[in-house]
Amino acid sequence: MSAMRLVVEPIVRAALIEDLGRAGDITTEAVVPAEATVEAVIAARQPGVLGGLDAALLAFELIDPTLRIERLCADGARITRGANVARISGRARGMLNAERTALNFLCRMSGVATATRVLADAIAGYKAKIVCTRKTTPGLRALEKYAVRLGGGVNHRFGLDDAMLIKDNHIALAGGVRAALERARQHAGHLVKIELEVDTLDQLAESLEVGVDAVLLDNMNPETLRRAVAMVDGRAVTEASGRITLETAPAVAATGVDLISCGWITHSAPILDLGLDIAG
Amino acid sequence: MSAMRLVVEPIVRAALIEDLGRAGDITTEAVVPAEATVEAVIAARQPGVLGGLDAALLAFELIDPTLRIERLCADGARITRGANVARISGRARGMLNAERTALNFLCRMSGVATATRVLADAIAGYKAKIVCTRKTTPGLRALEKYAVRLGGGVNHRFGLDDAMLIKDNHIALAGGVRAALERARQHAGHLVKIELEVDTLDQLAESLEVGVDAVLLDNMNPETLRRAVAMVDGRAVTEASGRITLETAPAVAATGVDLISCGWITHSAPILDLGLDIAG
Amino acid sequence: MSAMRLVVEPIVRAALIEDLGRAGDITTEAVVPAEATVEAVIAARQPGVLGGLDAALLAFELIDPTLRIERLCADGARITRGANVARISGRARGMLNAERTALNFLCRMSGVATATRVLADAIAGYKAKIVCTRKTTPGLRALEKYAVRLGGGVNHRFGLDDAMLIKDNHIALAGGVRAALERARQHAGHLVKIELEVDTLDQLAESLEVGVDAVLLDNMNPETLRRAVAMVDGRAVTEASGRITLETAPAVAATGVDLISCGWITHSAPILDLGLDIAG
Amino acid sequence: MSAMRLVVEPIVRAALIEDLGRAGDITTEAVVPAEATVEAVIAARQPGVLGGLDAALLAFELIDPTLRIERLCADGARITRGANVARISGRARGMLNAERTALNFLCRMSGVATATRVLADAIAGYKAKIVCTRKTTPGLRALEKYAVRLGGGVNHRFGLDDAMLIKDNHIALAGGVRAALERARQHAGHLVKIELEVDTLDQLAESLEVGVDAVLLDNMNPETLRRAVAMVDGRAVTEASGRITLETAPAVAATGVDLISCGWITHSAPILDLGLDIAG
Amino acid sequence: MSAMRLVVEPIVRAALIEDLGRAGDITTEAVVPAEATVEAVIAARQPGVLGGLDAALLAFELIDPTLRIERLCADGARITRGANVARISGRARGMLNAERTALNFLCRMSGVATATRVLADAIAGYKAKIVCTRKTTPGLRALEKYAVRLGGGVNHRFGLDDAMLIKDNHIALAGGVRAALERARQHAGHLVKIELEVDTLDQLAESLEVGVDAVLLDNMNPETLRRAVAMVDGRAVTEASGRITLETAPAVAATGVDLISCGWITHSAPILDLGLDIAG
Amino acid sequence: MSAMRLVVEPIVRAALIEDLGRAGDITTEAVVPAEATVEAVIAARQPGVLGGLDAALLAFELIDPTLRIERLCADGARITRGANVARISGRARGMLNAERTALNFLCRMSGVATATRVLADAIAGYKAKIVCTRKTTPGLRALEKYAVRLGGGVNHRFGLDDAMLIKDNHIALAGGVRAALERARQHAGHLVKIELEVDTLDQLAESLEVGVDAVLLDNMNPETLRRAVAMVDGRAVTEASGRITLETAPAVAATGVDLISCGWITHSAPILDLGLDIAG
Repeated sequence: MSAMRLVVEPIVRAALIEDLGRAGDITTEAVVPAEATVEAVIAARQPGVLGGLDAALLAFELIDPTLRIERLCADGARITRGANVARISGRARGMLNAERTALNFLCRMSGVATATRVLADAIAGYKAKIVCTRKTTPGLRALEKYAVRLGGGVNHRFGLDDAMLIKDNHIALAGGVRAALERARQHAGHLVKIELEVDTLDQLAESLEVGVDAVLLDNMNPETLRRAVAMVDGRAVTEASGRITLETAPAVAATGVDLISCGWITHSAPILDLGLDIAG
Repeated sequence: MSAMRLVVEPIVRAALIEDLGRAGDITTEAVVPAEATVEAVIAARQPGVLGGLDAALLAFELIDPTLRIERLCADGARITRGANVARISGRARGMLNAERTALNFLCRMSGVATATRVLADAIAGYKAKIVCTRKTTPGLRALEKYAVRLGGGVNHRFGLDDAMLIKDNHIALAGGVRAALERARQHAGHLVKIELEVDTLDQLAESLEVGVDAVLLDNMNPETLRRAVAMVDGRAVTEASGRITLETAPAVAATGVDLISCGWITHSAPILDLGLDIAG
Repeated sequence: MSAMRLVVEPIVRAALIEDLGRAGDITTEAVVPAEATVEAVIAARQPGVLGGLDAALLAFELIDPTLRIERLCADGARITRGANVARISGRARGMLNAERTALNFLCRMSGVATATRVLADAIAGYKAKIVCTRKTTPGLRALEKYAVRLGGGVNHRFGLDDAMLIKDNHIALAGGVRAALERARQHAGHLVKIELEVDTLDQLAESLEVGVDAVLLDNMNPETLRRAVAMVDGRAVTEASGRITLETAPAVAATGVDLISCGWITHSAPILDLGLDIAG
Repeated sequence: MSAMRLVVEPIVRAALIEDLGRAGDITTEAVVPAEATVEAVIAARQPGVLGGLDAALLAFELIDPTLRIERLCADGARITRGANVARISGRARGMLNAERTALNFLCRMSGVATATRVLADAIAGYKAKIVCTRKTTPGLRALEKYAVRLGGGVNHRFGLDDAMLIKDNHIALAGGVRAALERARQHAGHLVKIELEVDTLDQLAESLEVGVDAVLLDNMNPETLRRAVAMVDGRAVTEASGRITLETAPAVAATGVDLISCGWITHSAPILDLGLDIAG
Repeated sequence: MSAMRLVVEPIVRAALIEDLGRAGDITTEAVVPAEATVEAVIAARQPGVLGGLDAALLAFELIDPTLRIERLCADGARITRGANVARISGRARGMLNAERTALNFLCRMSGVATATRVLADAIAGYKAKIVCTRKTTPGLRALEKYAVRLGGGVNHRFGLDDAMLIKDNHIALAGGVRAALERARQHAGHLVKIELEVDTLDQLAESLEVGVDAVLLDNMNPETLRRAVAMVDGRAVTEASGRITLETAPAVAATGVDLISCGWITHSAPILDLGLDIAG
Repeated sequence: MSAMRLVVEPIVRAALIEDLGRAGDITTEAVVPAEATVEAVIAARQPGVLGGLDAALLAFELIDPTLRIERLCADGARITRGANVARISGRARGMLNAERTALNFLCRMSGVATATRVLADAIAGYKAKIVCTRKTTPGLRALEKYAVRLGGGVNHRFGLDDAMLIKDNHIALAGGVRAALERARQHAGHLVKIELEVDTLDQLAESLEVGVDAVLLDNMNPETLRRAVAMVDGRAVTEASGRITLETAPAVAATGVDLISCGWITHSAPILDLGLDIAG
């Protein structure tokens, strides 16, 4: 985690406090003796790709720094059903206090990593890569983008400020592709790339004429995509988007595009089920 | 939203800042004239149940208080594909700055509300109600619990501190059902309810003997659930849990339980697709 | 302190910064040599019940983690005048920087615990217990509720969200006891208890008819309380409230109520005097 | 409130969120119709000095900006039992959501103002003034110091950084009164005053020799105080401290000291009882 | 300011609170009648480029929303000595409370804008542009980068995360230019540009061979820069860096580089002197 | 740093997060092997006075607590060109992540300390001392005031609340020097000093008549200053202000004033250049 711990710790801390509320874990305090100690493992209930382990283990560490924590897998590992990903031992109270929050991070990020991996595997023979969007969970963008990388995807913009993406509404308000691109070029710093969303091959032609770093080919069928890729001919990065599914992804990849953009992997991926097993 | 705006506003504000980063929406600033104004609607791309509209519209308001916002539907409404849920007009820049963050709240909360509604409809003939869990998105628990209510579900605990839920690990560490319940009773304030997770009918019998407000009947098949409900005979609230799906829910409801607990509606519900349509 | 340290630490940290201001402890920095070390004890100047020791010692730890701290008493202990409750040794500067803030927590929480204990002792022969209210110091509710438990009291709601308490204004606005209770029941989750404030025995009868978890018997004299308890006959928890004092508490307890509610123990308890004695 | 609103608003906001928790005012939301409106007054149940009205009314405003609020008294006013201090009208829900938090500020600050006033009145014939200490409630120092001024008291230091107060431990660690004062003088900026705590007339003589802005005459009896005042002879401000009570204050004031310091008015003043009366 | 107000407001608010402290503006409260009103202008005491006016006026607005504020110049305007840039009227107290904080933002940002402008003007005949660095004031980076744009400069990276800049230490640790660039290319998303710092023409040749978006030509003399620009021949953006001054900038610009990087404009620019003149 | 670490840590943490953004140091993560370790020194590129070393080293410690850090100089030391001020060894990634933020604190604070030292040295033969103003960088006041002390200066007020400074506008609004001073005296606590800005010797005479702790002699020439000092004759601290430069300072000091106030040392001091040298 290293430096990113500075960014992630406030998120994990806030999630723990969200769960502890004002009075804390009243069940555990009432029922579990203060001196009880246990040993536990975090185990996968499904196969998939591990993600968010650092955040999850940080939850235990923040609750009780005396817990002994052993990583058995690394983020990004393909795990089988039943695999133990970490071992934790120490005071039972702390372990139970942190359990749900830790798993909420772990299962969600593993879900994103797994969904990405499945999609990436589906197009494994092609040069295309899966790329994420800004359709992420409010407050968790950095973690979800990281999970996408763990699953073999690449990241698109992290926000509105680290690259330009000129969409249909921007084009309309600027008065056309050329005007939009020229204004963008004029304002962009030398380390800012510009991508433009095109809906037609005419728009694509115009944008190539002006010059652009990447084009977002939105809602085109495979045949049109193929022609677009041919038109671009290496002069820009090509990204296909628009309701890509596991079923349609290979046909899209076969068109020769560089990237296939998918919102689903961050906004609708189901969690990967992992749980805490306390040794009897 | 009323008083809850105090709780929700910091979450929406943080999400906007997460997207704006340090430099803000550099595309819109470069490409869209400062004086351009537009009119837009938020429209449903799928049928479902609306959720999170207040949070979404707050995103627009926080970015640009001069935007005129008109609600066309209320949170909790069943909406058809194509339905317009709000109309927004004013400066184009502000609208584009807020768009993605607003939709991220709206689509996610509508997704939770819709998933809950589908499950609730599936058991509509029975007295059982769908109840959520603490398997929520870190940072968004209050919003997701609210979305569950919009979809016809009822809320379980909001955190570790507002009721006692004695689980299998608590029972093991306390030395049995009786000991756990007695300790819980001794520490609980008079407005704190106690629920206990039981895996067997023997545990159920023991817990009823000691007295308990609710029992979580975990991973029981319908036949066992039916016998459990008969044993309880109204002396406690009965809640069934354990990998409930749309297919299995009716059979579980038919056993006569009061509540059917489902983590899926908050941790794995896909979003409901809504978008911003700017008038041409 | 365990998990609650996550909740308490920001409060203690903010209190220290409130005292340090922008320039810090300018007296100590000017006058006390950086290398000077001392040994000190925190001692009681009055007999009472100890509370807030963890928060107080956390203040020293946050200022200077190299201070050696030894607990001599535990929160909740009855202490005599002159009793040493902790021993601290190390750099003099850190000790003086933290002294006042630490004592402000310790004396206030010990004051709450002591006031509760005195009241609890006054009704020791009866089944009734002292219960606190939401009349707490802004920002310190969790700590004060904890201090109440240390003094032998039990906690009422921690906030507006963890149980329902239907008061006179709610009843009037809902259109009567029955309507209020029915609406409450309809909205309450299965782990949310409902208490209703009754001013008359008629209201009590109506609420028992509808069903309620607890009744707040407000401003009733002992004779009326006795009749109320008889009417309830175990069907609800009974809580007496209304300007209870040390003098009137025993007579109220003698009526057979389960709980005696007292705002005074949190909003007006004088501090318990403890001080830091630096060894000559 | 003016500029201080920037400082006070985060405190009031945090107190409201402390009370609302994650789920908000579930009683009011369930029981009170959304459209119900009411008119209410905040009324004194005891005579005293009003304090904290701005903070209290800010709580209502933050919860529901549409509430109409009319001030009927100003902070610092002497109020009689039954006096109405503010009138509020508008949506019932918002009013009930904010009620307890608003009153918690109002009653506590009025309590501090009243306690100060009582003590100030007791020494009204003398030149001495009541001065507060740093024995304040964590998080509320600015508000409590303000309440002291409302009650006719004057403020001592707001924290460790805005003046130097050399206490017994500082003197011991510096190696005596002269060394301590000289080091203080050397480090103090030209707008920083220096006060020194003296326990004996010898220490007083030494400190006057070196020069000091004020002397804290700790735990001296009236006769010694009188001699101290004579020794000082106008060369420094004289402040008496040490368990001053309403009974002993006049005798202390009669010694001619300039200030009488009292921790009790902030750390142990009982609240002044005020309540919200909703018109029937 | 629009959307960036969300980012800037917390910075201005914190600066006001830094100045108000716990007790607020005690001079103004003591000396200036609450009802006094004044009219004032913010006037330039030196010629330069205006920057930070929005932040400065926000300080007045946050302190007292009733102040009437009229902008007379826009950020980025070249102003003469004596020019009035804004007119403010209303309560004197609020104006005096905010004055220093407002001017601290205004003078500093105008200083950055002016320094940038002077440097940009010095190379006005050439295609080269002035570009800033990450050598900014902690906490004020977004504002300072904005001021650079106002002065005619362009922005380099806003932080470590929005582009890759491979420096000498990175190259050494990676094992050479080629290895560093290849690893960078492999990890970079499609909207992330890569710049590499080169100290010699050999390194430049190697980096062009591998391919790179921009090269930072560090500490090269004009003759070497000229050869570097010729070698690059349009295949990458060229940026000269290394202790550029007003005197040396034209010679550097004359070499044909695209950008001239300058830390001085953010880390060492003197303020532009502006003041608040209250009408007599 | 001791207790002030509580105040400084949030500032350093925020600066690191400002630089890391959402995605962190993407260059270093891509290019530098996770296991690489290095040894580095922080070295002065110019002679001057060291300031901000604690804050700078805290940046490294917060990023990677396993880095070994050795201080070679102390804040306030006069350092020569080439002097090593600290040695750091450990993981290369952490060192590169923190480098820029650490240096931004170090160079700026050393710049303030050096500028102050230069000015202080220029008046070394006189009793006058250099004093700072409130013209500081928003968010960094405590650090900059500390740097002023390191350079041999003394601190003026830290904010609006720790002393009274009656300026020309205050005097005008109060209706004259006498009225302003009397109101100030009436409101000031016994540990609050009062300074008054005078523009003429008449105002000075009037203020001495009423009594004042210090006078700010604004924009007077040396001859007038000399007469002012003579008039004051030790009855108040004398402070000269108004565009003092290195050239004019000695003549001002020669007039016999106690203090010479200078905004330049905090608002316009250039940084002192220090850098991180990683051992080859």
